[in-house]
Amino acid sequence: MAERVGLIGLGIMGKPMARNLLKAGFALTVYNRTASKARDLGAEGATVVSSPRDVAAAADIAISPEVTRAVGGQLEAKGVAMIDAPVSGGERGAIDGTLSIMAGGKPDDFERCRPVFEAMGQKLVHCGPLGAGQTVKLCNQIVVGLHNLAVSECLVFAAASGINTDRMLEAVSAGAAGSWALTNLAPKVLRRDFSPGFKFSLQQKDLRLALEAGDRMHLSLPGLALTHQLYSALERRGLGDEGNQALVRSIELLCDVTVRGSDPA
Amino acid sequence: MAERVGLIGLGIMGKPMARNLLKAGFALTVYNRTASKARDLGAEGATVVSSPRDVAAAADIAISPEVTRAVGGQLEAKGVAMIDAPVSGGERGAIDGTLSIMAGGKPDDFERCRPVFEAMGQKLVHCGPLGAGQTVKLCNQIVVGLHNLAVSECLVFAAASGINTDRMLEAVSAGAAGSWALTNLAPKVLRRDFSPGFKFSLQQKDLRLALEAGDRMHLSLPGLALTHQLYSALERRGLGDEGNQALVRSIELLCDVTVRGSDPA
Repeated sequence: MAERVGLIGLGIMGKPMARNLLKAGFALTVYNRTASKARDLGAEGATVVSSPRDVAAAADIAISPEVTRAVGGQLEAKGVAMIDAPVSGGERGAIDGTLSIMAGGKPDDFERCRPVFEAMGQKLVHCGPLGAGQTVKLCNQIVVGLHNLAVSECLVFAAASGINTDRMLEAVSAGAAGSWALTNLAPKVLRRDFSPGFKFSLQQKDLRLALEAGDRMHLSLPGLALTHQLYSALERRGLGDEGNQALVRSIELLCDVTVRGSDPA
Repeated sequence: MAERVGLIGLGIMGKPMARNLLKAGFALTVYNRTASKARDLGAEGATVVSSPRDVAAAADIAISPEVTRAVGGQLEAKGVAMIDAPVSGGERGAIDGTLSIMAGGKPDDFERCRPVFEAMGQKLVHCGPLGAGQTVKLCNQIVVGLHNLAVSECLVFAAASGINTDRMLEAVSAGAAGSWALTNLAPKVLRRDFSPGFKFSLQQKDLRLALEAGDRMHLSLPGLALTHQLYSALERRGLGDEGNQALVRSIELLCDVTVRGSDPA
């Protein structure tokens, strides 16, 4: 019999991930703090419950994005296995089931969860013991943050130089400067589309965790610190619900330049 | 009859580009400051000459990486057309003929050069008037430089955290953090391979040009400036002939951490 799966949190990422679990035939129990967001999943076949405790009671495997190594220790004492499994790939990856999943935990527990992960992701990596998934996710966010800075400064430089920004992107994306951010986020900036794939207030939380972890290890990560500071300037303006491509606004503010596409829409 | 093509400069990029022109059947005349580097191309069918002037005399289309808008003006007065066409994609792209070529110049001149470009590159973009290719190349280098900073801080953070750096790279490369740099340069760092695809002293020259252009436009590009400064610390140590992935050394110096791969070689 297929494992009964529980999912807590049905935001931009959680809802499409839940749909992919349903599609894969898992018996799914879901909870969301704002209950209204869970309703349509109920219509699609999920069991909607009113607390994380009810999810745990109904499921063999429950997945929450808010997990820590400390919780894992407490659970282990009660005979409950725990995996930390952050994802990357944005809303698009969650919808298409092409997420990258970076998991930490015991090998046996990881193998047991594999079919559940495979229903939601394309790239599935066992990174090490419990907590390793979260550390790899922070590595991921350091790169994502700095890639957004790269996109931002590149676009402002191009716009100020008066060249065709669409042609520029086309040329630059195909070579040694290519990145997911350049392909997926830079064109949004050219359309002034700051809607979130990934809300940058959530990314700021991760960058803050990375800075704090770095600080505990006495690391010096100037690029990460700069990126976090520039996002802070935008949080102060109340823009935290925008997508992480909004970082360009900080460089636009500094330079008094607005980036726009050159081609007719 | 096919155009006679001239190529000036036979370094890491120029030599494989010349070979692709020969393969495509162009009559090729080459010049290199250090004559010995041109010799094997002579054996492969190119005509080796001893000055840029001789290249110009022998060729219908001559390509040099050291071109400027000013030169273009002087040439136009003499009835000579000029295209600026920087490339991206590294040594691998030069060898495989998969370079991204970003060209500036008049549309007719661009079309005339198209078959020559197609012999060396996969992605060919006409970016605008003469000089636009160079501006797009600077945009490219801003992104490449900051991507190297992203890779550097990510790897040092991972190494200091004690996680498996190979597993981390595998997980992170497949998602929203993916980039050419992460796929191609980060694994070299894990092997402590700092040999150049692209020597960072040459990249520094481009970052300096970007900073100078930015300064003339009174732009504030803090990520670019930071990246340039960190490379400077390595130039001071005489490491400029290493590949641009060597930027990780600057973060390693700051953090007193050495990045290594976790898997047996």
